[in-house]
Amino acid sequence: MDFKIRPARKEDCKDVSRMIMELAVFENMPDQVKISHEELERDGFCQNPFFECLIAEVPEEHKSKDGFTVVGYALYFYTYSTWKGRSVYLEDLYVMPEFRGNGIGKGLLSKVAEVGKEKQCVRLNLSVLDWNTSAREFYAAKGAQNLTESEGWHSIRFDKLNMENLAKEAPKD
Amino acid sequence: MDFKIRPARKEDCKDVSRMIMELAVFENMPDQVKISHEELERDGFCQNPFFECLIAEVPEEHKSKDGFTVVGYALYFYTYSTWKGRSVYLEDLYVMPEFRGNGIGKGLLSKVAEVGKEKQCVRLNLSVLDWNTSAREFYAAKGAQNLTESEGWHSIRFDKLNMENLAKEAPKD
Repeated sequence: MDFKIRPARKEDCKDVSRMIMELAVFENMPDQVKISHEELERDGFCQNPFFECLIAEVPEEHKSKDGFTVVGYALYFYTYSTWKGRSVYLEDLYVMPEFRGNGIGKGLLSKVAEVGKEKQCVRLNLSVLDWNTSAREFYAAKGAQNLTESEGWHSIRFDKLNMENLAKEAPKD
Repeated sequence: MDFKIRPARKEDCKDVSRMIMELAVFENMPDQVKISHEELERDGFCQNPFFECLIAEVPEEHKSKDGFTVVGYALYFYTYSTWKGRSVYLEDLYVMPEFRGNGIGKGLLSKVAEVGKEKQCVRLNLSVLDWNTSAREFYAAKGAQNLTESEGWHSIRFDKLNMENLAKEAPKD
């Protein structure tokens, strides 16, 4: 199947927002999504954007059963390793179920790697859920290392309330 | 003990670079550090910096046995959750051993939380090594959640070589 990968435009945010929800449903956490397409527009298309996004598009004649031509996305941003330097972090990689098996996911992933290389990044990082065997195998087959298993890194999060509680304790200047 | 927390300046990068190495020694991976202070200067003090950094400083009369007054740092950057929005990620938090127990680490952490709050971030994320019990307890006591344990998130990395191999497979425009 023909598909094209291109940088997302502001007007793609509705499609991206729709697919963010589809991915959260797959991950069994749909009630966790609090982001609207307006926020994506604000945060991704401002002066110093908080993220960049690529989308996969199919021609009109291959549109989805619900009429969509934007059928996948990869959302990423830049991070920094104090050991190695500039890195790129892939937050989401998603292809609509009815379009899988056509190389679209691999195309999106390798395009993000290409962007990382252009920006002189030395790593491409991401997270997977432990039960998502197909994703884990997909990345491992392409040479990725599982750092939680090999080095014992755990992901830690302060949610908004706990972050704001911490902020209250900040020393005054 | 008196200490002051302030944003790092370009001329602090030598001190930050020294402490990055001290932290890597503590984490048993000193040979992993490939970053010099020149790269920190380039990547942290450019137009769209890849990271921001706070440092902790003590007065001259409390300088370390080796003569240092910059005795801790917190290095962070902004990330994005497609469920919740803007987030801040704490890459490194370090206080020199002889200055621990004075609230400097807590001061740095809460200052990063304050910066996150000011930037309308909804999360403060970080990673810890599984054997680093004191760090894990420190964060848990302040309300952090271990996502690897509670939700099964694993950290995945493509190193430079594997990232560049992926990039070679990117579809042409």
